[in-house]
Amino acid sequence: MGETAKRRGGPGRFGALKAEALAANLEIPKLGLAILTWGNASAFDPELGAFAIKPSGVEYGELGLEDMVVVDLEGKVIEGDKRPSSDTKTHLALYRAWKGIRGVCHTHSAHAAAWAQARRDIPCLGTTHADQSAEAVPCTAMILPEEVERDYELCTGELIVRTFAERGLDPRHDPMVLVAGHGPFAWGGSAMAAVRNAAALEELARMAILTLGLDPGAAPLPEHVLRKHWERKHGPGAYYGQR
Amino acid sequence: MGETAKRRGGPGRFGALKAEALAANLEIPKLGLAILTWGNASAFDPELGAFAIKPSGVEYGELGLEDMVVVDLEGKVIEGDKRPSSDTKTHLALYRAWKGIRGVCHTHSAHAAAWAQARRDIPCLGTTHADQSAEAVPCTAMILPEEVERDYELCTGELIVRTFAERGLDPRHDPMVLVAGHGPFAWGGSAMAAVRNAAALEELARMAILTLGLDPGAAPLPEHVLRKHWERKHGPGAYYGQR
Amino acid sequence: MGETAKRRGGPGRFGALKAEALAANLEIPKLGLAILTWGNASAFDPELGAFAIKPSGVEYGELGLEDMVVVDLEGKVIEGDKRPSSDTKTHLALYRAWKGIRGVCHTHSAHAAAWAQARRDIPCLGTTHADQSAEAVPCTAMILPEEVERDYELCTGELIVRTFAERGLDPRHDPMVLVAGHGPFAWGGSAMAAVRNAAALEELARMAILTLGLDPGAAPLPEHVLRKHWERKHGPGAYYGQR
Amino acid sequence: MGETAKRRGGPGRFGALKAEALAANLEIPKLGLAILTWGNASAFDPELGAFAIKPSGVEYGELGLEDMVVVDLEGKVIEGDKRPSSDTKTHLALYRAWKGIRGVCHTHSAHAAAWAQARRDIPCLGTTHADQSAEAVPCTAMILPEEVERDYELCTGELIVRTFAERGLDPRHDPMVLVAGHGPFAWGGSAMAAVRNAAALEELARMAILTLGLDPGAAPLPEHVLRKHWERKHGPGAYYGQR
Repeated sequence: MGETAKRRGGPGRFGALKAEALAANLEIPKLGLAILTWGNASAFDPELGAFAIKPSGVEYGELGLEDMVVVDLEGKVIEGDKRPSSDTKTHLALYRAWKGIRGVCHTHSAHAAAWAQARRDIPCLGTTHADQSAEAVPCTAMILPEEVERDYELCTGELIVRTFAERGLDPRHDPMVLVAGHGPFAWGGSAMAAVRNAAALEELARMAILTLGLDPGAAPLPEHVLRKHWERKHGPGAYYGQR
Repeated sequence: MGETAKRRGGPGRFGALKAEALAANLEIPKLGLAILTWGNASAFDPELGAFAIKPSGVEYGELGLEDMVVVDLEGKVIEGDKRPSSDTKTHLALYRAWKGIRGVCHTHSAHAAAWAQARRDIPCLGTTHADQSAEAVPCTAMILPEEVERDYELCTGELIVRTFAERGLDPRHDPMVLVAGHGPFAWGGSAMAAVRNAAALEELARMAILTLGLDPGAAPLPEHVLRKHWERKHGPGAYYGQR
Repeated sequence: MGETAKRRGGPGRFGALKAEALAANLEIPKLGLAILTWGNASAFDPELGAFAIKPSGVEYGELGLEDMVVVDLEGKVIEGDKRPSSDTKTHLALYRAWKGIRGVCHTHSAHAAAWAQARRDIPCLGTTHADQSAEAVPCTAMILPEEVERDYELCTGELIVRTFAERGLDPRHDPMVLVAGHGPFAWGGSAMAAVRNAAALEELARMAILTLGLDPGAAPLPEHVLRKHWERKHGPGAYYGQR
Repeated sequence: MGETAKRRGGPGRFGALKAEALAANLEIPKLGLAILTWGNASAFDPELGAFAIKPSGVEYGELGLEDMVVVDLEGKVIEGDKRPSSDTKTHLALYRAWKGIRGVCHTHSAHAAAWAQARRDIPCLGTTHADQSAEAVPCTAMILPEEVERDYELCTGELIVRTFAERGLDPRHDPMVLVAGHGPFAWGGSAMAAVRNAAALEELARMAILTLGLDPGAAPLPEHVLRKHWERKHGPGAYYGQR
């Protein structure tokens, strides 16, 4: 396993993972997704069984490679001397439940957070949304008092996983969710992909608010356009990008 | 034909065209019209019978001259080793149908996209709009299932052309459109002019949303002011600019 | 007169005036008040009986001192080989009518333009507004067909002057106006002061839209707070700033 | 006392305090909380019995250490040759009344100011808000004519203090307020903390406006989530940050 990491060029066993997490976290403020110390991203390596995540409450401008915290799937810190993000266990719950996810990003970006605060799914109103996901962005139920008491952050992650299971959604196709009363989480095949999905979510959340402002009864995008857009980017015959 | 291109200074037959397309594409994120890899612009040379366009899914920060893809009016790639923008055939349909258009730009800029998602024309509410176009910005009908199946991107372009024909609009006077459920396209006498028209469209879309927020029944600009503004910039006796 | 200009350090008779106009125009995009080539500012010197103004349709990034156009109060270009801003005669009408005004700025900033397009005065809803003006920002009547035909830009300026006269407003106290269906004009004791008043107008226009969104019947600021704020900044016993 | 200041490295008795105030003021425009000369922050040292504050009406780009004005708790300028911010006595009233506050920041940030102009408390609609304060952000009553006449800025501060007392709020837990018809004030354990609280307030004010736009009857965050978020960041067993 260490071989894999070393081959990717980072110093030490978790060097590459920490570098990936650092780069993804630094993209959060660049994309306008968080102010101050808000927001966090992590990079997961299933071979190592561990993920690297932002330390809690540290300014983006002061983040260095040595600040990244490496955590295993039991939630134990296995490298780093900082306290990991307070949302660490939510990331962990997603890595545990979903195979193929290698990055998670959480922000309080304003438009996505507004949908979460209004506790509403974001309907798919146009191709900008369909390019990212073929479904409405789901909003979870409100977390229960007993869940908050038991293990708040872990239960938040499990609530996300349960929401996807109950609705028959596939996290590899629909890489974003709203946690009711809280805000957005996004994920993807890498930490950077997760951050970019968080940026796409914020933008489609903004467009949906503007659209409903123009027409509160705006109809969802018809199925034939929705499928086409999702499939030209993510389907088996995809022709978007340079793959 | 090659002579013309060479005179403009680019290397190779399509050098000047690719340089023009590159510069126009780089303007898209600078003007705040797209995040991530969204949006694309192309530059057309009627003498060469070809246009240069952004490659699909490549980051703006990584775009170089060699990434531009040159496509002829049959849709065949005639220079470049990248896959062209997935919207290439929409650009092509406009160049085929409309003489005098030498640049096309497509974005998902939020306010224009919101009008497209609400499937509404943008009424001309003020001189900012009249400076760009003497008409409401038209929104097409929703593309049909059989059109999506036949050739989605080409049919999108033909839908735009048909919308202009049916409404008696002149694409040289009204250089912008909304595709229902999708987003804005703009064009002009060069790739850069197309991008600037896309920026103007986003701004007038934003102003119109703000205006309707203040007065949902806001009246259109009276005809005598509308004509004056359009004509002082685009009419035979125009006195805007340095021509 | 030339002596005065030379003492201020510019080359030639109008050097200082052109430098002042250039600096003020460059501030317009920096303050986010215009995209592309939109917006213009001028600097007036009553001793010289002339003002320097932005050339029409030139990009901000390309503006140099030599591009500024000097115009006298008859509207004649007396220095510069570019065509002056198409709004030149509106500036001229304000300099002619109002003593003490030495700068004018016109933009299409989105929130102020939205109020102009909705053809509504901006009510004074808070101290941010009262710091700039003790009155609602007036919106003119719509310009008449015969005025457009006679001399559109000059009549726009006269419409502004008439609006102030009819309402008993003092342009030295209330340095901003909305032209119905068009957009904002602001002025002040210098070209830079005019641009800053345009920025303040945009910001208070934005706040007023946000306030009415929260409460469509929001009450104006009570008279006792309004007077206090205006007077602590502009009254005889003002204690704001370093005067 | 001077020892303390010297140990912190500034020149002269108030050097450190002025440096802290300067750094905090420069953060205001960087965080997008003010345009032009709007906004001000101060740094208080209870041992010195004095605070350093921004001079009135000076541009952020021109602020230097020597421009900071040091004021004692009687409102007397004890160092500096500039006139202090016109809001100085409001800062003073907060330092006098509340032990443990070492920084105050006042801005006219647009979304928080809109709530102040609508004269409404900002309800706690999500965890973004709960991370900052466990209560609605209170909006004061409108200041009375006799208070404006007596000592406007001092009475504004006393109005804030009275609002907190009447509502049983603890300024160490709820570091922000809206002054009706005016705008936001925030405070904290340092001048920089005060500015960051002002930034957090603006962001949660923006989110609340967006949320009510989606659902005018949006419910407040349930108590069990609200308490959890506030306590994980500020409670006795807090695990947010690196403390």
